[in-house]
Amino acid sequence: MDMERLCIHTITTKHWTTEECITRYSAAGVTGITFWRYNLEGRDVTAVGRRAREAGMKVVSLCRGGFFPSKTAEGRQKALDDNRRCIEQARELEAPMIVLVCGAVPGQSLEESRKQITDGIAAVLPEAEAAGVKLAIEPLHPMYADDRSAVNTMRQANDICDALGSPENVGIAADVYHIWWDPELKHQIEFTSAQKRLFAFHICDWKTPTADLLNDRGLMGEGCIPIRQISDWVDATGFTGHREVEIFSNLYWAMDQAEYLKKIKEAYRHLYV
Amino acid sequence: MDMERLCIHTITTKHWTTEECITRYSAAGVTGITFWRYNLEGRDVTAVGRRAREAGMKVVSLCRGGFFPSKTAEGRQKALDDNRRCIEQARELEAPMIVLVCGAVPGQSLEESRKQITDGIAAVLPEAEAAGVKLAIEPLHPMYADDRSAVNTMRQANDICDALGSPENVGIAADVYHIWWDPELKHQIEFTSAQKRLFAFHICDWKTPTADLLNDRGLMGEGCIPIRQISDWVDATGFTGHREVEIFSNLYWAMDQAEYLKKIKEAYRHLYV
Repeated sequence: MDMERLCIHTITTKHWTTEECITRYSAAGVTGITFWRYNLEGRDVTAVGRRAREAGMKVVSLCRGGFFPSKTAEGRQKALDDNRRCIEQARELEAPMIVLVCGAVPGQSLEESRKQITDGIAAVLPEAEAAGVKLAIEPLHPMYADDRSAVNTMRQANDICDALGSPENVGIAADVYHIWWDPELKHQIEFTSAQKRLFAFHICDWKTPTADLLNDRGLMGEGCIPIRQISDWVDATGFTGHREVEIFSNLYWAMDQAEYLKKIKEAYRHLYV
Repeated sequence: MDMERLCIHTITTKHWTTEECITRYSAAGVTGITFWRYNLEGRDVTAVGRRAREAGMKVVSLCRGGFFPSKTAEGRQKALDDNRRCIEQARELEAPMIVLVCGAVPGQSLEESRKQITDGIAAVLPEAEAAGVKLAIEPLHPMYADDRSAVNTMRQANDICDALGSPENVGIAADVYHIWWDPELKHQIEFTSAQKRLFAFHICDWKTPTADLLNDRGLMGEGCIPIRQISDWVDATGFTGHREVEIFSNLYWAMDQAEYLKKIKEAYRHLYV
């Protein structure tokens, strides 16, 4: 049983406070936690990280930085400032990695947005390196190319990593929800790993039908994504990191979160039997 | 003004009957019409085609064949039967082309579905050739990879065309809604045309936010797709066919359809000024 690789993103149970997430996940035997930045608001960030570790969990990532593109220089500067704050938070939290949702601006060409993303990451990279924090580009599903990310495939994420040339500190977070459909997926996972930049692996499922573009993700096993196959490809590269459950779901947010956590564990167990 | 290349898919004004679509589009100066198969139900198909031509319009396509994959041999056979009926209808309608929404089955691998799609097209190709009807594979957005199409990029559609080796009769319908995000798009349009298989060009727009995965498409100009740029790439290859407006929209279906038709013409004019 691979329960020792189960990580949960706090947004998955977003109605729980930061403290509830820590105590509940820990009591359930979950071994990794990825904090979202709202978890840190008004809190002693160092203490949050310490509390998670004292509860027996690894802090896997901080979600999320990014959103670099803007039509104005002022907007791009604001994004850099925010990413620098995020790096500082990750350092205090002792999170080894930040997940980047890179951003896009409706009406601005995707090429221009990708250029701004590359420039943005390059600009904050020195701070990330100094803080010992890795930056993981998360390719987002093409249905988010309008306003969330101009990076929609593993190949594009790899191209940006190549351009930045910092294998230690810039890599990729592979989320099955975004990339399962990609005919190049197996090859791209192998390539990413060979470049030593496969930093994170996120799981959930794609429901048929999907009622909402953002908040109708499924629990593993509820949908059509060949999660185990993709996970096996990832593991075959030597990846031993956590499998991070990240589910945005109006449906699950509306249910009793303790019951939901049980379902997550069951789904995870069923997947990795 | 390029009004002579404006075609409308009848589903765009789906509350109009077949006869209303013909008279209304024609009165508005629209020069092409793509029928959906529901337009033919209970009607003399030959007469529908004749009436459209008598009203001064070209019958551009018949929408839609496809949906080849199934987990059962019986399901696949039913799909072949249906596609053969579709080819017969296109022949009677004197539509030169059928648009294929190729199909996918949740839980069946996309590779297997693509194999079944290729086999399915191969099986009905002799009938299509005999009827003088072209088959246009429409790559669908990756958000439809679960149950609508395992063909999600121009590249994949080209791969299937290559495998079938029938350039006269198997080609591609390029719809900006599905492919606008593809970083390879310009190259793939050029390649498709060079292979003499760029059969059709569909337009609409991607709204931010998009409220529904299926029925919230935008009118040209309402969204983020660089339609004119893509259209110019298409025309630069020598394509002189119709630009087919195909909009699924709960919003627009709810409005007065005559007013909506005016909006479509305005949007088209604005796009091709």
